Amino acid sequence: MVHSPAFQFDSEIPWQDLGNGVQRQMFGYDEKIMLVKVKFEAGATGAMHEHHHSQVTYVEDGVFDMTIGDEVKRIKKGDGYYVLPHVVHGITCIEPGMLIDVFSPLREDFLPAI
Amino acid sequence: MVHSPAFQFDSEIPWQDLGNGVQRQMFGYDEKIMLVKVKFEAGATGAMHEHHHSQVTYVEDGVFDMTIGDEVKRIKKGDGYYVLPHVVHGITCIEPGMLIDVFSPLREDFLPAI
Repeated sequence: MVHSPAFQFDSEIPWQDLGNGVQRQMFGYDEKIMLVKVKFEAGATGAMHEHHHSQVTYVEDGVFDMTIGDEVKRIKKGDGYYVLPHVVHGITCIEPGMLIDVFSPLREDFLPAI
Repeated sequence: MVHSPAFQFDSEIPWQDLGNGVQRQMFGYDEKIMLVKVKFEAGATGAMHEHHHSQVTYVEDGVFDMTIGDEVKRIKKGDGYYVLPHVVHGITCIEPGMLIDVFSPLREDFLPAI
C-alpha cells in the first residue's frame, strides 16, 4: 500500500504556494486517508467545489465562513466540519488561519505535488 | 450512510473523560472516516495498541513522545504522524496538549459514546 513516512515534522515539510493567499503542507496518507494543512490569509477563498471523497476538517486557527450545501456558518479555532461525498462546499477566510483537512480515500490529485 | 452533522462547534460538543488525564471530543465522521480531538495532561499516556484502521494525526498543541512500531520520536505542535493498519503504537504526553486523530474507516468502537 502506498503511504507516507510514519512521522511528519512541521519544520521539514515544504509549504506549497497555491496562490491567492493559500498554502498547503502534505502530511500523513495512505490509499484510504490523507491529512493536509491549509493556511489562509484573510480574504483568501476556497472556491465552491465537490469531490467523491469524504472530508473532515478541524479549524487549527483563524475565523472562516464555511458553506456546505445550502448551509453557511462562521467557524473558528476549535470547530470543525464534515462534507459528504459530492456535496458542494467552499470557504472564505475572515481572519488568517489554518485548516486541518482530512480526506478518505486519499486525494490522488494532490499526490504529484508530494 | 451513517454520518455526523455538517458542522461541529467546540463549545457545543461534550468532552468525554477517558480517565488518567485523557479527554476526547467526537467530531465529524461517516463510515469511511472519523475525526476526534484528544486532550492530554502532562504524564498521561495512550498505551501501546493496534487496530485495523489507518490513522493520521496532527499535534494541535503540546509535546509528546510517540512510538510507532520500533520508532520513538519527540513531536510537538505542528507535527504529525501516520500509522499503518495493525502497527502497534502508543504515546506519552510530555507537555499538556491535544491531538487531532483521524481514522479510516470510522472507529465503530467510539460510536456508542456519541
